[in-house]
Amino acid sequence: MPRSYSLDEVSKHDSSSSCWVIIRNKVYDVTEFLPDHPGGTKIILKYAGKDATSAYEPIHPPDALDKNLPPEKHLGELDSAAASAVKEAEQSRKKTKDELRVEAAQQAKPPLSRILSLWDIEDVARKVLSYKAWAYYSSAADEELTHRENIRAFSRIFFHARVMRPVSYCDPSTTILGFKSSIPVFVSGAALARLGHPLGEANITRGAGRTGIIQMVSSNASLSYAQIAEARLAPDQPLFFQLYKRRDDALAEQRVREVVSLGYSAIFLTVDAVVPGNRERDIRAPFELEAQEREAEKVERADQADSPEAPVQDKEEKGETNLLGTAGALIANADLDMTWERTVPWLRSLTKLPIVIKGIQCVEDAVLAAEAGVDGILISNHGGRQLEYSLPSIDVLYRLRKQRPDVFNKLEVYVDGGARRGTDVLKALCLGAKAVGMGRPFLYAQSAYGEDGVVKVVEILQREIVTGMRLLGASRVQDLVPDMVEQVNWQPLEPKL
Amino acid sequence: MPRSYSLDEVSKHDSSSSCWVIIRNKVYDVTEFLPDHPGGTKIILKYAGKDATSAYEPIHPPDALDKNLPPEKHLGELDSAAASAVKEAEQSRKKTKDELRVEAAQQAKPPLSRILSLWDIEDVARKVLSYKAWAYYSSAADEELTHRENIRAFSRIFFHARVMRPVSYCDPSTTILGFKSSIPVFVSGAALARLGHPLGEANITRGAGRTGIIQMVSSNASLSYAQIAEARLAPDQPLFFQLYKRRDDALAEQRVREVVSLGYSAIFLTVDAVVPGNRERDIRAPFELEAQEREAEKVERADQADSPEAPVQDKEEKGETNLLGTAGALIANADLDMTWERTVPWLRSLTKLPIVIKGIQCVEDAVLAAEAGVDGILISNHGGRQLEYSLPSIDVLYRLRKQRPDVFNKLEVYVDGGARRGTDVLKALCLGAKAVGMGRPFLYAQSAYGEDGVVKVVEILQREIVTGMRLLGASRVQDLVPDMVEQVNWQPLEPKL
Amino acid sequence: MPRSYSLDEVSKHDSSSSCWVIIRNKVYDVTEFLPDHPGGTKIILKYAGKDATSAYEPIHPPDALDKNLPPEKHLGELDSAAASAVKEAEQSRKKTKDELRVEAAQQAKPPLSRILSLWDIEDVARKVLSYKAWAYYSSAADEELTHRENIRAFSRIFFHARVMRPVSYCDPSTTILGFKSSIPVFVSGAALARLGHPLGEANITRGAGRTGIIQMVSSNASLSYAQIAEARLAPDQPLFFQLYKRRDDALAEQRVREVVSLGYSAIFLTVDAVVPGNRERDIRAPFELEAQEREAEKVERADQADSPEAPVQDKEEKGETNLLGTAGALIANADLDMTWERTVPWLRSLTKLPIVIKGIQCVEDAVLAAEAGVDGILISNHGGRQLEYSLPSIDVLYRLRKQRPDVFNKLEVYVDGGARRGTDVLKALCLGAKAVGMGRPFLYAQSAYGEDGVVKVVEILQREIVTGMRLLGASRVQDLVPDMVEQVNWQPLEPKL
Amino acid sequence: MPRSYSLDEVSKHDSSSSCWVIIRNKVYDVTEFLPDHPGGTKIILKYAGKDATSAYEPIHPPDALDKNLPPEKHLGELDSAAASAVKEAEQSRKKTKDELRVEAAQQAKPPLSRILSLWDIEDVARKVLSYKAWAYYSSAADEELTHRENIRAFSRIFFHARVMRPVSYCDPSTTILGFKSSIPVFVSGAALARLGHPLGEANITRGAGRTGIIQMVSSNASLSYAQIAEARLAPDQPLFFQLYKRRDDALAEQRVREVVSLGYSAIFLTVDAVVPGNRERDIRAPFELEAQEREAEKVERADQADSPEAPVQDKEEKGETNLLGTAGALIANADLDMTWERTVPWLRSLTKLPIVIKGIQCVEDAVLAAEAGVDGILISNHGGRQLEYSLPSIDVLYRLRKQRPDVFNKLEVYVDGGARRGTDVLKALCLGAKAVGMGRPFLYAQSAYGEDGVVKVVEILQREIVTGMRLLGASRVQDLVPDMVEQVNWQPLEPKL
Repeated sequence: MPRSYSLDEVSKHDSSSSCWVIIRNKVYDVTEFLPDHPGGTKIILKYAGKDATSAYEPIHPPDALDKNLPPEKHLGELDSAAASAVKEAEQSRKKTKDELRVEAAQQAKPPLSRILSLWDIEDVARKVLSYKAWAYYSSAADEELTHRENIRAFSRIFFHARVMRPVSYCDPSTTILGFKSSIPVFVSGAALARLGHPLGEANITRGAGRTGIIQMVSSNASLSYAQIAEARLAPDQPLFFQLYKRRDDALAEQRVREVVSLGYSAIFLTVDAVVPGNRERDIRAPFELEAQEREAEKVERADQADSPEAPVQDKEEKGETNLLGTAGALIANADLDMTWERTVPWLRSLTKLPIVIKGIQCVEDAVLAAEAGVDGILISNHGGRQLEYSLPSIDVLYRLRKQRPDVFNKLEVYVDGGARRGTDVLKALCLGAKAVGMGRPFLYAQSAYGEDGVVKVVEILQREIVTGMRLLGASRVQDLVPDMVEQVNWQPLEPKL
Repeated sequence: MPRSYSLDEVSKHDSSSSCWVIIRNKVYDVTEFLPDHPGGTKIILKYAGKDATSAYEPIHPPDALDKNLPPEKHLGELDSAAASAVKEAEQSRKKTKDELRVEAAQQAKPPLSRILSLWDIEDVARKVLSYKAWAYYSSAADEELTHRENIRAFSRIFFHARVMRPVSYCDPSTTILGFKSSIPVFVSGAALARLGHPLGEANITRGAGRTGIIQMVSSNASLSYAQIAEARLAPDQPLFFQLYKRRDDALAEQRVREVVSLGYSAIFLTVDAVVPGNRERDIRAPFELEAQEREAEKVERADQADSPEAPVQDKEEKGETNLLGTAGALIANADLDMTWERTVPWLRSLTKLPIVIKGIQCVEDAVLAAEAGVDGILISNHGGRQLEYSLPSIDVLYRLRKQRPDVFNKLEVYVDGGARRGTDVLKALCLGAKAVGMGRPFLYAQSAYGEDGVVKVVEILQREIVTGMRLLGASRVQDLVPDMVEQVNWQPLEPKL
Repeated sequence: MPRSYSLDEVSKHDSSSSCWVIIRNKVYDVTEFLPDHPGGTKIILKYAGKDATSAYEPIHPPDALDKNLPPEKHLGELDSAAASAVKEAEQSRKKTKDELRVEAAQQAKPPLSRILSLWDIEDVARKVLSYKAWAYYSSAADEELTHRENIRAFSRIFFHARVMRPVSYCDPSTTILGFKSSIPVFVSGAALARLGHPLGEANITRGAGRTGIIQMVSSNASLSYAQIAEARLAPDQPLFFQLYKRRDDALAEQRVREVVSLGYSAIFLTVDAVVPGNRERDIRAPFELEAQEREAEKVERADQADSPEAPVQDKEEKGETNLLGTAGALIANADLDMTWERTVPWLRSLTKLPIVIKGIQCVEDAVLAAEAGVDGILISNHGGRQLEYSLPSIDVLYRLRKQRPDVFNKLEVYVDGGARRGTDVLKALCLGAKAVGMGRPFLYAQSAYGEDGVVKVVEILQREIVTGMRLLGASRVQDLVPDMVEQVNWQPLEPKL
Repeated sequence: MPRSYSLDEVSKHDSSSSCWVIIRNKVYDVTEFLPDHPGGTKIILKYAGKDATSAYEPIHPPDALDKNLPPEKHLGELDSAAASAVKEAEQSRKKTKDELRVEAAQQAKPPLSRILSLWDIEDVARKVLSYKAWAYYSSAADEELTHRENIRAFSRIFFHARVMRPVSYCDPSTTILGFKSSIPVFVSGAALARLGHPLGEANITRGAGRTGIIQMVSSNASLSYAQIAEARLAPDQPLFFQLYKRRDDALAEQRVREVVSLGYSAIFLTVDAVVPGNRERDIRAPFELEAQEREAEKVERADQADSPEAPVQDKEEKGETNLLGTAGALIANADLDMTWERTVPWLRSLTKLPIVIKGIQCVEDAVLAAEAGVDGILISNHGGRQLEYSLPSIDVLYRLRKQRPDVFNKLEVYVDGGARRGTDVLKALCLGAKAVGMGRPFLYAQSAYGEDGVVKVVEILQREIVTGMRLLGASRVQDLVPDMVEQVNWQPLEPKL
């Protein structure tokens, strides 16, 4: 039976020479783990000898400690006095300005029945998400230009709508890798759903199950892969797995074998994120929050004239800024040396599941993927979060259709990045995509409205897709053909940017 | 002789099991009609057992009840006490914030003599129209991008003006389907004119008669087709009919036969609106009005400190949002399975009137229309109200001129969407259009200034067209040729968007 | 000896049946002239029986009355009491809000030494000009889009600057129709200079003389052609004449013979203004001024609580709006039927002076002009004031250079519209223009700073042109060749629009 | 032994007939030098008979007086009373509004650890630089359009990122003219670093030394060439010299011989600045500062009601505006007649150092440079500070790559102007550039944070370049090839402009 600890005892291990932390009333010795922490040493030391639960929980799946810390470092539990003290401290903690803002926004958000579009959901999410979560979800590389251009590129594609075609029967369903999907849309891998909502990825799993679409689960989910599999509404609800391959082949293999055994249905090997992109809003989030608090204190002090301001110098960061942000840590330990020759066969040797390459950014690599014999490619620039100035993904699809239409016969082609409307999905399908991935919209929806928000997103898209198909003169997804779209040489005005 | 009813009696029939409504002091039993109401059940139930006149009138032609409700459901009249009570209630009803705004705007609007352009009229209409009417008239699909691009596309077409040509004689008149028109402009079908002005479509009919242009009457006019025919200044004033074909061929035939017998001169079969477009501003209008009133109440309550605010929760909509808006209901029961092979011959079998296909959105369908032997096509995307990202209509005309100039010899080609200036009309004519349709400008004009507003629109256009022809070196519409226009590859700055 | 009149006597002739006006203390009977007044009857009747000097002076040359009114209608002078009364009334007249604004702006304007660019001068002019003058000078047709695009079109032309070429010697001078010009810039005809400055066109004449450039004098100058000729610094200072040909050949001939006899050096026949353009800001100016005054009165009344506001209705215009504005009247009685076959030979028959066609707007007409044997063409769209959507003039020059380089060998080619910088002038010269005309900049300069402002404009341009030539590697205007410019396919950001 | 002087004595020489000035307590007779002063006579006369140290120091290297004034004009020192008085006057001088603003900004600037990008540094510099320094550093010619377009042109180039390539090894280093550089970036010549920081160019020298990049030293450095050479961290730290060739060959030769003897490693002959560009913000800086002070005085006077305002007239500039600004003076006495035939051989005859032509602005001149046998070219438009509408430099590189790829085999090609991100550098390298120069970013960095700021710039760029290379699939600079970039035909939205 494990020992129990007082707060006093834990608090003595508050340095890199001996570093204990409390998570959900359990005590862990992370001293030896410190150098291996993907998010860096510094963030852990901030909680050395203390309770780290609130910082830890939203960004780690529950099995992270089991997977990463040997059993002997699981020291035991807090004694009951300590547990009470921790609980009380959390409850009596003064709320930050950002937390108060979020609470007010939650009160004021519109009922789901008034949400008409994915933009509406994004507007709500912007308000109800914590600053940190919004920064992590919405940010992209550098000036976030590729992120915006992903969206704008769709705007340069217009329709040649066909009339006088029978469309009372209209079926927007399709298959993806042989799995039925109620609409030609899937949830693209997006990490850390619990940053936005306590139930996290499970909201998406259940929402997808209810509406008949397929979820791709990120390697960096904030629930365990098992928890997500368990959240399915039925055992045959398909789940895809987004694999970030680790440098260490053995660890990578272990991860693949885990999801195969859990019943996942396909592997999307992510190749556009071997190193983290430079997401400055994400990196800057802690500074901004600190500035907010400092400002709040100033206002307070102005009311209590006798308490002088602490010198600013004291509050300034002494060491190095964490250039990873919330995002960067997730990509630590990635395999930077993947190749077509080595990595695809390696993965093939581990599983018979379909393999899709996620992160194709040019025609040449689409061709190489087809030659490598994978089952599909996801044209993607990671939502503009990795290489700034990667071509908008719909433009890569457009070039592929023009230059190498043969590739579409060899594998399934998907695209993600920038789609927000049913018409965007239809444009991609006209150009030969089998389905369109969306990431942020589902994160925003589950953050703002939980599982029902996810369902709403699919309902909106289904309505928009069916309306669009009918007005285009298409009654099945196969009727959507390249002649129905035209890329124009001007840029429409965009009210949303 | 029909019975008369007390308010008390009517008020008992206030549910879906027995639903009576009062319209212009008459009592109707609409219980059985509820599921067939194109605008949905909910909106009627809101008035169950009550007077519905003010909601009903502006959006239904007077013959709607006769056409849709069997005689036995016309129960009778209110008794005189009830009629007085209804009248008094209406008169003593507290005006909404929006009604007060409109009244003030009506007072402040400039005299018609100061209106210089169609933009001026739109500015006035924006102010004097009710929120609901403005939302219905001005809104378009999704982000309203195609609506804006319809306008911007004209801006990319410049003139090669010719000089040293005799232009003291300058005649802007033309014919449309053989009917004389004083300028190459017609009123494109636009519904529900009574939302903007009590005299509704008749303002347009009389204005068109006074200025020698032709009105196309919408299937969804808020006056009966007969009332509009009667509003003509002379029996030979031509009227075109915009046909929304209903799914039920018999009902559709009945509608065609009605307008033929009323003396309408051509049928414009609408093919771009088999299902309603997604006009979010229109759908959102009720929420916005509700929010305005809530805000107004709040201000009032602040003055009467003792009356506490009702909990917001109570005010929130419980059921589903009406996703049709004012617009969507009009398109209910449409024929989604029209084809070139079936529908054109069917229509031809009913009437010898010229047939024009309204809603051609690409070159391929213009060719098919010519092959189908119709008399004309109206290149149109329904003012951007149907399929978002349909190509701007002037751009479709441009492509048709470049790719299939032969089509212009086989039928008459018209275009609508985005034209606001005489120069816009001239550009379309240079590209081969026989005439240009305008919808919103006439709705705005009759809303702001009634029949005189309609006349003003034509006068402005005539002046602008004649000035433009002379400065282009054209003395007749035939002098307007493709060499006189050039589509440029940049986007001019537009002060109006 | 002419009679003298009392104010009382004059005031009896205050209607269209007998209409007398006072101008500079002289009394005129304009009853019979009323229908012939290019600016309309209404504006004269406003002053019937009264002193009209302040309205008349800035927009009519002093010889207008002699030319247009038979001697017997020059009734005589005011008696001295009347003259004093008129003078006193003028002096004691309460200044309008706009006049007060202008006076303050005149006080605050920067010294000429601080003016660095033509944009600076325009900024000053915008402030010191009366509302009416600014509206007349700056306005253009419709949305003023061609006016803006004239400027933006220059922005799409970039340089291929050449280095390592000797440029210590650098001569920006050229000849225009054989006349020496210190820089390749001339004053393009621009009317009504006295609206901006009491000395009017003479400011430009003297400024041009001092700096060695050539002025083109408008048919609608606000000084007489003789006064302008007399303002020259030397008898050999060349002046060009911008001819608006009147419908009546005899009157037109009389005008040509007058300027020939006054020693003008060339005729620029204006062909792009046979009818007035639709300059809405100009037309709207009186409404705006009226609204300003009404606003000012309201403020005043608020201070004097007992004087109630006159009903708005009374103040509203009853009759028709003057759709000509200040500009339109100038183009009345123009010849709308000029042709290459008739008009050029007619003009050639009247004079041996060089003939230039002003207002060429496309390549085809440039070719026709060359075939007609004229000495030059001025590619111009009248500063965007006539046909909205006429191609930017520098773009017409660009097309002429690409499509018909032979034309440049047959006549001299000039361009005006949109040039504001020395680099703009150089671009036009690289494309083959012999010289560049500027209108508004000289009007603004003389309005803000009189003759010295005109000199400043030339000094700035000379400095900018020489700097630009040296940085381009050109030491003479002949060194400016097409290879030095490139039209790009993007639109630079423009801080000035 | 030199004489010593009282202030009284010096103050008598306060005119152009006898003009003495005090600099660092030394007295100089500059009477005969007045007409030769590149910055004009007027600015010196402002300090005639007075202490000029604070105006003189930041814009002249310490050896300027030795080089330009004969020894007999170095009259001697102030006596100790005078020196004390000068010091006291400086200390008791009331600070200007601008100085106070700068002081506050210095207090508030963020710690260097929070600087994430070069844009962050520019934001800090904008705040902490004096108005005059900011105007000099940041301004460009005319509307500063080429400066902005330099930046925007990079935005039109997108990547074709390659995946599945080994990038754990990633080396961003290269050589420039055979000299090792840790990243493919060098400091492009930029003058007057002491305007921004008292240690001036030496900050850059030491920062470059610490990070392994190469500095190009401007002829117009505010430290002497020797001081900069001495600031190197090691004798083999390479320095390049940016030569502004003076008209007088002997003086030019003397300058070259000086830097050769000091151990500089290459000569960058500047050919795009034979005359100063028209930098209006720089020229206007004194007016703006004057207006600020006047405004400040006004506020002060409002508090001291009895001191009346001096008439504005008195404060206005009487003479001519200095059209050179801070910048223009630096280019005085330049050789305007350089040629390929004469100047390159002349320079070759003086030194065996590599010769690079700085300021190539078109393909034709790149070809001529290759034919002239120089070692490299720097495609540059002087940061948009010289010829407005010179093509963006990255666009010239793009054209060179397309039209004359052979040139890249004959010499090294560099480019500067507009690069602010690692991705910008990578784009240039893909197009064949050997390295990218940056000027303003280094000036801003040393102004805001001294030497550490310079180091930070390199660290940021190194991180961005390595991240970008890995995400592009490149492990060495040679892997960056033209196929990896595509110039698109639309303009992305730019948050930074």
